[in-house]
Amino acid sequence: MGVLAPTLAVIGGGQLARMMAEPAAALGLPLRLLAEAEGVSAAQVIPDQLVGDYRSLDLLREVTDGCAVVTFDHEHVPTEHLHALEAGGIAVRPGPGALVHAQDKGVMRARLAELGVPCPRNALVSSVADVEEFGFPCVLKTTRGGYDGKGVWFVRSAEDCGDAFASGHAVLAEELVDFRRELSALVARSPSGQAAAYPVVASTQKDGICHEVIAPAPDLAPALAGEAQEIALRIAGALDVTGILAVELFETTDGRILVNELAMRPHNTGHWSQDGAVTSQFENHLRAVLDLPLGSPAPRARWTVMVNILGGPDASVGRLYDGYPHALARDPFLRVHLYGKELRPGRKVGHVNAYGDDLDDCLERARHAAAWFRGDLGNESE
Amino acid sequence: MGVLAPTLAVIGGGQLARMMAEPAAALGLPLRLLAEAEGVSAAQVIPDQLVGDYRSLDLLREVTDGCAVVTFDHEHVPTEHLHALEAGGIAVRPGPGALVHAQDKGVMRARLAELGVPCPRNALVSSVADVEEFGFPCVLKTTRGGYDGKGVWFVRSAEDCGDAFASGHAVLAEELVDFRRELSALVARSPSGQAAAYPVVASTQKDGICHEVIAPAPDLAPALAGEAQEIALRIAGALDVTGILAVELFETTDGRILVNELAMRPHNTGHWSQDGAVTSQFENHLRAVLDLPLGSPAPRARWTVMVNILGGPDASVGRLYDGYPHALARDPFLRVHLYGKELRPGRKVGHVNAYGDDLDDCLERARHAAAWFRGDLGNESE
Repeated sequence: MGVLAPTLAVIGGGQLARMMAEPAAALGLPLRLLAEAEGVSAAQVIPDQLVGDYRSLDLLREVTDGCAVVTFDHEHVPTEHLHALEAGGIAVRPGPGALVHAQDKGVMRARLAELGVPCPRNALVSSVADVEEFGFPCVLKTTRGGYDGKGVWFVRSAEDCGDAFASGHAVLAEELVDFRRELSALVARSPSGQAAAYPVVASTQKDGICHEVIAPAPDLAPALAGEAQEIALRIAGALDVTGILAVELFETTDGRILVNELAMRPHNTGHWSQDGAVTSQFENHLRAVLDLPLGSPAPRARWTVMVNILGGPDASVGRLYDGYPHALARDPFLRVHLYGKELRPGRKVGHVNAYGDDLDDCLERARHAAAWFRGDLGNESE
Repeated sequence: MGVLAPTLAVIGGGQLARMMAEPAAALGLPLRLLAEAEGVSAAQVIPDQLVGDYRSLDLLREVTDGCAVVTFDHEHVPTEHLHALEAGGIAVRPGPGALVHAQDKGVMRARLAELGVPCPRNALVSSVADVEEFGFPCVLKTTRGGYDGKGVWFVRSAEDCGDAFASGHAVLAEELVDFRRELSALVARSPSGQAAAYPVVASTQKDGICHEVIAPAPDLAPALAGEAQEIALRIAGALDVTGILAVELFETTDGRILVNELAMRPHNTGHWSQDGAVTSQFENHLRAVLDLPLGSPAPRARWTVMVNILGGPDASVGRLYDGYPHALARDPFLRVHLYGKELRPGRKVGHVNAYGDDLDDCLERARHAAAWFRGDLGNESE
């Protein structure tokens, strides 16, 4: 009766772990962090922490000692370590059997094919001859280790294939999809099998990194939205995912959807939910991995727009704290999320959310604020 | 350009400091905490912390070293220490000149009289004879040190006055107000003078402790609501309050409002704003004390109901983490806030917020959940 909560171990000290800390504080859920270095994003807001390498099984055992459940800021913990933790009696959520589909694109493609989930045409390739047989132009991806546009090459001829095969990873070839836009279907799923599906959103990438998200995706045919949610729920169930599953999709110009990528953690395309949904993806991730009943994923506003704040090529022109006076005074409804990171070229340091009844207004407000923090608006406020 | 934020010192490790930590994490604002003991509520979620006594000026100097601004979880830091910190170049927000009005009810009543703010009839009393002259029945309050019903006595005759005069504090007599209900007007105010007024709420007390809040106050005459907000803004301006000011009011049976108490910190009657307003009182407190532009205090729902979770007389029947399965499954829209405190009789350990279009539905949901956590619903879920 009246018991305090069990401690949840979180591996990885990035902004996703940081943003888990907010609902964890609200719900009275203690977190224990394994951070990769002193003072990283999540280490600034989670007192109970160890610092060290997530590839060390000893450290993983130390940080999870006394914890019933472990979850993750990223998907890079070696699969064999996850199995070892499980064998030691700790609930690993998502588990290694699920997580391998987010870690290895070859395994993911094979499994989705078995499930009959629509994907771009793809094949494992081990030589330029294989790629020639697959057909140019195409996309080459390392099956492991890629993220945010890294480990992906658009190739038009044999000469373009060198970097992919020099990467030391297995390589997957995929057709170049003629897509209208990218969508994302996010679901939370608990070990008991309860699942909650967020509205399908539209996302825009810049240099392979999520740039802007509109929730819900404008003018998405209800049948396609339903299909996207159904695919995400089906994958989550079939792969026994626990926590958040993000399914990134292509909406093709001929009106189909194809699965592009899977992520098994809170995802950039779900950041809108912090201010735009009844229950944020971060809270539902915690509730899911602890096998607590999920919160409603229903939107709280007609539209929510999320725009990332990234350091520009000259990060010294960007703003963080010093950007607040203008950004907050201009828009008292703006929601700002900064990650406690210094600006560096191409580094995600935060995002803004703007919600409301008018999409154009939300887009203008969120884009203006993000551009201001990035330093794209010059040195004067407007 | 692109500077990381200055560190904000927070004195006091209770749930108010804990709930400041959530928006601080979101906004990338580092906090440094002085906690009264290891592992108290806020110490669980703020890594940068010292443990010690807030009555020690040396410790106050140590925790604020390198901080431009200091703010508070409570109003108990000695006034002379606040002046000493100010003299040392630290911005104390709210400042001692304002805070004394929340610390000393005698000073508060005298100042509000000067400002022409309507208050219950009152007088400083130093003997039973003074109380007899003031007139029975009345309320006696110690001018300093009271909170949550402590330091308050309802007296009907000379025999009832002993405890008040034995308290060692100066004593204020106040008329017994014939009130319809209690209201609260919350404003945030920055050093630059920007102010934001939250909707006026109705609050219900139980044994002198805030029990339930309805935002906005149902059926409140617009003229009275406007007068309450105007009074709160006027007090905040005249007293140069920085941060949140809560003005607790009586709505009299004959349609007037009278100021009951002032608090200069996030207040229990503002907890609804975490889920019911665009910007929570905790975020606006941080923005105000850092002199950043304030966020909109506009409501996000037609109604928000807050009910406190307090340990009952037999705290062992209450629930915390073990109350989640039923509470969250019954109401996926419920918002729960637990403070990381163990249940003890009469101790505030959390609160719930329920928002929506239908007030009766919100009341039922929030009351059910709070009763469940308190243990008032027996041991079976319904």
